[in-house]
Amino acid sequence: MNIRKKVRIGIIGGAKPSPEFRKAAYEVGRLIAEKQAVLVCGGLSGVMEAAARGNKEAGGISIGVLPGTSLKDANPYIDIPIATGLGYSRNSLVVMNSDVLIAIDGRYGTLSEIAYGFIQGKKVIGLNTWKIDGIIKAEFPEQAVDLALKQYFPLVS
Amino acid sequence: MNIRKKVRIGIIGGAKPSPEFRKAAYEVGRLIAEKQAVLVCGGLSGVMEAAARGNKEAGGISIGVLPGTSLKDANPYIDIPIATGLGYSRNSLVVMNSDVLIAIDGRYGTLSEIAYGFIQGKKVIGLNTWKIDGIIKAEFPEQAVDLALKQYFPLVS
Amino acid sequence: MNIRKKVRIGIIGGAKPSPEFRKAAYEVGRLIAEKQAVLVCGGLSGVMEAAARGNKEAGGISIGVLPGTSLKDANPYIDIPIATGLGYSRNSLVVMNSDVLIAIDGRYGTLSEIAYGFIQGKKVIGLNTWKIDGIIKAEFPEQAVDLALKQYFPLVS
Amino acid sequence: MNIRKKVRIGIIGGAKPSPEFRKAAYEVGRLIAEKQAVLVCGGLSGVMEAAARGNKEAGGISIGVLPGTSLKDANPYIDIPIATGLGYSRNSLVVMNSDVLIAIDGRYGTLSEIAYGFIQGKKVIGLNTWKIDGIIKAEFPEQAVDLALKQYFPLVS
Repeated sequence: MNIRKKVRIGIIGGAKPSPEFRKAAYEVGRLIAEKQAVLVCGGLSGVMEAAARGNKEAGGISIGVLPGTSLKDANPYIDIPIATGLGYSRNSLVVMNSDVLIAIDGRYGTLSEIAYGFIQGKKVIGLNTWKIDGIIKAEFPEQAVDLALKQYFPLVS
Repeated sequence: MNIRKKVRIGIIGGAKPSPEFRKAAYEVGRLIAEKQAVLVCGGLSGVMEAAARGNKEAGGISIGVLPGTSLKDANPYIDIPIATGLGYSRNSLVVMNSDVLIAIDGRYGTLSEIAYGFIQGKKVIGLNTWKIDGIIKAEFPEQAVDLALKQYFPLVS
Repeated sequence: MNIRKKVRIGIIGGAKPSPEFRKAAYEVGRLIAEKQAVLVCGGLSGVMEAAARGNKEAGGISIGVLPGTSLKDANPYIDIPIATGLGYSRNSLVVMNSDVLIAIDGRYGTLSEIAYGFIQGKKVIGLNTWKIDGIIKAEFPEQAVDLALKQYFPLVS
Repeated sequence: MNIRKKVRIGIIGGAKPSPEFRKAAYEVGRLIAEKQAVLVCGGLSGVMEAAARGNKEAGGISIGVLPGTSLKDANPYIDIPIATGLGYSRNSLVVMNSDVLIAIDGRYGTLSEIAYGFIQGKKVIGLNTWKIDGIIKAEFPEQAVDLALKQYFPLVS
């Protein structure tokens, strides 16, 4: 199937999650692959790496929108690293390249991406993340991916 | 006095504040001028314009970091418009060019700037804005500006 | 084969090429697919579209780094559109995401990308383009792609 | 006089000019101050620093649009440093914030800025710089500043 036609689910979350949330991110990544969606993330470590790993191991495709100028910065499970050289200003590009977002855990970087989600009119599913008006709460990975697929508005046609 | 040596106070807030918060922003802008600080903001309407107007009328200097490519987009009270052409990704540049932030009211754009404040290690004073861990709460304009001047860490030397 | 391991050849060139250069771009795109490389470009019309079309029709994969915020802006032959919202500042990102560049025809946008190629230490192959010190001249599409593959320095490992 | 109403002359040029071009840049900066224009540049060393120094010593005002995230990166003669965190992608912002450009000497960074000048419809005066179609050639500093002031199209009104 054409990559461009697939739904893109953006995973946003902390660089240093607890083992529990690392596992949840891995599951979310795996489910995204099983549902034939594309995973988009910031391409680095923590939640981003766990989700990309789960995705990779289930045969999925992932895009990593990196803050730096080198494609080598991407974690080893990213299929399509994209360098931006924008530093943290790239956070809005992670969101721009996603149809819908799942936030897992996370601190201020994740908060900026949740905010960009709402600025850009995207739906944001939350798995144990910031309590911000508008977030659709999920209790576990399957529910998060199901909610994402139900809520998304297709960017690409 | 050299502009470069002055403290830069970033004002972040909504494009459509109530009359009450417009008035508070105006007061904050005026006080920034009286304290010999430089006002930094996103250069557009609402809280940004009210603060720049208060600043201008008290003889201050303001920098407006614009999302678009044209300097003409800046509200009429901005002294030094800066065009970026980055759209909402410019929110991180508003923060980057401030020593300390005062958030007034605001919605998701302001939330993204609060998040960038903490990502970049800046202090954030809040005047009736988002309830986010780390924000130092102020009750009225004078207190907000006083707290900002006490908290700031000088970027420029 | 893993997409990430493939060489990325960036195609830069004008939005309004003559039929002759449109044909050359199409050929270059086709050859990139045949050589198992990935095509990177600005994702829009003219040389970018002709090259992406040639690539697509030969079964290749292309990445389009767009100036706007919508993935829908990409021409129909792009497999992986990337939105940046940076306007023409995205030109440096087209280059950043390429291992080596082929410039075909083009005006000032292409000139900025040639300049970024040298700023970033990339090799630039030229097919009837600007006369700038450092460009490696090619006479026809096959030679351009051959020279690109010989010259590139792998960004991804 | 209101800073915002002044013409902004962008100085683009190499980081490592010969003593001769450093002197020319210093003269250009001085003349910009004498003509009551504002100097815009990339804020770093070489031509940028020499021009800002000439400007400062003649009582002018300069804006430095920096690639990094810290205002401290600006050379000591910049009055209004602007941090972008965009790396070399900030080159288009130097141009965006200028009404007209004077290119002095320079290598590929300067070439990218000349290209952005034409992309953005600005006039470019050249003092011993790249030979690119459209550049208006000047022979010495006074002529460069005179030509800039005659050619500029006011961005701010």
